[in-house]
Amino acid sequence: MSTLSNSRYHHGNLRQALLEAALVILAKEGEAGLGLRDLARAVGVSPAAPYRHFDSRAALLEALAVTGFQRFTARMEAVAASEPDNPLAAMGKTYVVFALQNPNLFRLMFSPQLKKAARPGLAMAADAAFDTLRRVVSDSSAEGRIKALSAWAKVHGLAVLLLDGQIAIGAGEDTEALIAEIISSL
Amino acid sequence: MSTLSNSRYHHGNLRQALLEAALVILAKEGEAGLGLRDLARAVGVSPAAPYRHFDSRAALLEALAVTGFQRFTARMEAVAASEPDNPLAAMGKTYVVFALQNPNLFRLMFSPQLKKAARPGLAMAADAAFDTLRRVVSDSSAEGRIKALSAWAKVHGLAVLLLDGQIAIGAGEDTEALIAEIISSL
Repeated sequence: MSTLSNSRYHHGNLRQALLEAALVILAKEGEAGLGLRDLARAVGVSPAAPYRHFDSRAALLEALAVTGFQRFTARMEAVAASEPDNPLAAMGKTYVVFALQNPNLFRLMFSPQLKKAARPGLAMAADAAFDTLRRVVSDSSAEGRIKALSAWAKVHGLAVLLLDGQIAIGAGEDTEALIAEIISSL
Repeated sequence: MSTLSNSRYHHGNLRQALLEAALVILAKEGEAGLGLRDLARAVGVSPAAPYRHFDSRAALLEALAVTGFQRFTARMEAVAASEPDNPLAAMGKTYVVFALQNPNLFRLMFSPQLKKAARPGLAMAADAAFDTLRRVVSDSSAEGRIKALSAWAKVHGLAVLLLDGQIAIGAGEDTEALIAEIISSL
């Protein structure tokens, strides 16, 4: 693809275009395929243009993880609102399905390489996801925190075990039904 | 270290010596530090000697994961037997503590790179760990499987979230006490 003029992107639009293109590359090729120069080529801007929005590859990965958490939280909030009878089970299933549908993004969001302690924006986006769970599970007491951590551990573990191919799924077995059965014991 | 005569190892002893040395290297340096030649040097045998026991680096990693599962299962069986009143909580805590004490070994045991479907020995060792959990949780019915998967998902998720630094531990908070509280809701 030829490098088009950067002027087709208004300020802000280029950042969004870069993030969208990066999400596509991440989904197809994994984190290893993501470089700022390749991204510039994919979006059709000069090699230097992405640096106006992302200082480094690490900054791009952080922005992708933040975007991932925002979409993840929005999806969990929407499903909790739409299933008021059992919001916890609905959120749990959404958590696991999100991971299976977006494996590379999910791994990036929870990558130990992206240290949340050193990245306030990422920590805030991750906390918002946990707060959504906590509001549904219980109040803000210490006991409520334990309950929310317990529910989180279960859905996260199920997502990771399925992503990593650790749970033996029988031939013809319906993975979504299995997820629903395991989650329903929340 | 100078290369000693291979004759100091009887058949079988060398394999065991290589595995023990590899476990130490894995714990200290992670998987990246493990090569068959480095291992030969660490044990003090000729560079070719490890190949009599392990065809390849992948075979060594598989043997380490099998050893990990055997020790993990033995520890869980011992703790379940010693705490008959609440074997599930005891096993759950042991699961998470094993992961935190042996992070690199735990990651290797559950690595998606070591495909269990293609490695019957590894699949058998992993199944033995799951069977230990399943015997404690319930019978061998379909419902028992769901209960066991549910308990597994929870302890695995807690282990992974703690290993990856995703759960915010307050200053002065006791991690083992937190684990026990979360597990006790099993």
